[in-house]
Amino acid sequence: MTDPGSAALDVALAYHRAWTGHDIELAMSYVADDIVCQAPPGRLEGIAAFRAFMGPFSQILTRSELIAAFGDDTTAVLMYDTDTVPVPDAPGAERLTIRDGRISHMRIIFDRAPFDAARQAAASR
Amino acid sequence: MTDPGSAALDVALAYHRAWTGHDIELAMSYVADDIVCQAPPGRLEGIAAFRAFMGPFSQILTRSELIAAFGDDTTAVLMYDTDTVPVPDAPGAERLTIRDGRISHMRIIFDRAPFDAARQAAASR
Repeated sequence: MTDPGSAALDVALAYHRAWTGHDIELAMSYVADDIVCQAPPGRLEGIAAFRAFMGPFSQILTRSELIAAFGDDTTAVLMYDTDTVPVPDAPGAERLTIRDGRISHMRIIFDRAPFDAARQAAASR
Repeated sequence: MTDPGSAALDVALAYHRAWTGHDIELAMSYVADDIVCQAPPGRLEGIAAFRAFMGPFSQILTRSELIAAFGDDTTAVLMYDTDTVPVPDAPGAERLTIRDGRISHMRIIFDRAPFDAARQAAASR
């Protein structure tokens, strides 16, 4: 499933282990200061915006499982299942571009619909 | 970006080219009769259910671009941007398991939120 020879994948997996282990400080050490992240809510620029996006998600994570991991010299792709406090079974996929050992670009895909539904259900209680 | 040595990736890319080229018949020729697909709306079992899911999406596609493609002997991962009639910029990611030259399992991730919003906007017009 994984390619041990990929420099990009090594960084991607180290980042992934850190945030899924709730260590957002360590996770951010793999992220470039000027990261650009294309996420479902829109485009995030810079590590502060990225941290504000990923930090809260890391906090609500109750389980994670990596289900695919591939990479080459500059690019890695990860796919994972996560369970979160509001939404069980919330998978995600990321394409990570690595520059000088850090993540300079990320394209992240996940389904916002169950999170929106959980938020609406909580608001109506 | 692609690994030309991967048998699984060859099948995944042939399937991808077919459905993004609006040739759903050809696309289904790469799909196992007993495919299991874990998609955002839920679990689909069998090629008829899968076709009913992917066929309409193929029809509303106006542009597609593959942005990552990796694979090994049995598994491939694709990530792509698509523009669709109701939603521009609707990326997706798939992990495909290949058995005997056909897709026997697919995990597909995309964001349903903009499709839900487009549907609601159309209903309120």
